[in-house]
Amino acid sequence: MCLGESLMTPPDVDALVFDVFGTVVDWRSGVIRDGEKLGAERDIDVDWAAFVDAWREEYQPSMDRVRDGEIPWRNLDALHRDSLETLLDRFGVEALTETDKEWLTGAWHRLDPWPDSLPGLRRLRSEYFVATLSNGHVRLLADMAKRAGIPWDLILSAELSGHYKPAEEAYLRAVELLDVAPDRVMMVAAHEMDLEAASEAGLRTAYVHRPLEWGPDEYRSTNEPPDSTAEIIADNFVDLAKILDV
Amino acid sequence: MCLGESLMTPPDVDALVFDVFGTVVDWRSGVIRDGEKLGAERDIDVDWAAFVDAWREEYQPSMDRVRDGEIPWRNLDALHRDSLETLLDRFGVEALTETDKEWLTGAWHRLDPWPDSLPGLRRLRSEYFVATLSNGHVRLLADMAKRAGIPWDLILSAELSGHYKPAEEAYLRAVELLDVAPDRVMMVAAHEMDLEAASEAGLRTAYVHRPLEWGPDEYRSTNEPPDSTAEIIADNFVDLAKILDV
Repeated sequence: MCLGESLMTPPDVDALVFDVFGTVVDWRSGVIRDGEKLGAERDIDVDWAAFVDAWREEYQPSMDRVRDGEIPWRNLDALHRDSLETLLDRFGVEALTETDKEWLTGAWHRLDPWPDSLPGLRRLRSEYFVATLSNGHVRLLADMAKRAGIPWDLILSAELSGHYKPAEEAYLRAVELLDVAPDRVMMVAAHEMDLEAASEAGLRTAYVHRPLEWGPDEYRSTNEPPDSTAEIIADNFVDLAKILDV
Repeated sequence: MCLGESLMTPPDVDALVFDVFGTVVDWRSGVIRDGEKLGAERDIDVDWAAFVDAWREEYQPSMDRVRDGEIPWRNLDALHRDSLETLLDRFGVEALTETDKEWLTGAWHRLDPWPDSLPGLRRLRSEYFVATLSNGHVRLLADMAKRAGIPWDLILSAELSGHYKPAEEAYLRAVELLDVAPDRVMMVAAHEMDLEAASEAGLRTAYVHRPLEWGPDEYRSTNEPPDSTAEIIADNFVDLAKILDV
């Protein structure tokens, strides 16, 4: 199937809500950049790409502790800060001060959009509400948007429901705040799990292919997306705007 | 006291949160405009200025029903829609359809900023997070911002706490989402009640004088603001930016 062919008529929705890490921004390059910067200053010899990949791999397990009710709601800074300790220990990094660790945790606020993200969002925004719907907390998303100039109409977050995606509550709270029926909202993400849960909650879905999310070595072997169940399959945000006829 | 003299050094805050109705936008002119438009189409002879003032006067009592726990949380559309029925009855207006009533209720989403609001916010935004903190619900504020091009970093609302201002929860939820201490946030409003409650919740405060909020006939007799307890007293948003040295 060719990209974009899945849809004949653009869906009649009011809002597009976007997953952020990996979908809008390139978390891997940004956190590696800040890790290398700090490493150079503190004379730390570590493979920052491996470090950051390992940090990201702690992401789902750390949220699972909240999802499973093992711990009460904690935002991503707290979860990232916890898993950073584990990682520093595993990679044998001892030279960081508390301030360094806080700054490095803040790297997840300082991420750059993929090249198509801002041009695509600007186009999409002319027709739809464009909002985040991320597991990142509101302040993280606001910091990121302000630094990178991401033109959100609204910053929505799992934090507003107290439940991390893919919990249904995260999607339904966003829908409630948008004050529309679930099928007037389209979830845009590069991850099947997110889209499947959004679909189960009654939202429309668009998959955007982000083959470089895990870096060039893990580049998904073709430009073809996986066998997504999403209604729309787009190469990037500009392609999504074209498919939606914006 | 001259405006602006109250402050020597700009306060060290991360975010300015703004009351919206009356402070950022001129609700009265906007709702009168839409009332007159609908009235002309439906051949209704009513004094729309008086009608809109009466509608606004139902605002606090309608929220009191939520504040006092008489009814569960309902957003402003629902409260406005209820009080509209009372007003239509009182003013003897019978010609409106359900669709008309919904459209007229939507007038509260279609309000224009005061002339200084956008230039002032653009300046303030270069230094601070600028966010709403209104009793208007998220969707209403998002509609208003999109229509008028109001450059919010974030849309925060009493809705996110389930408590209408001046309940402490409304302010503290905003502070929690901004992920800072209360004194890193400054409430900006044209209403003493709002500022006093924000101050009691630990926020910093700035009063902005809006002598035309209730129209030219009610024009506050001088350009001097009332005896506000706010830390900063500003003529308008551009003046606020100047006082804050932005």
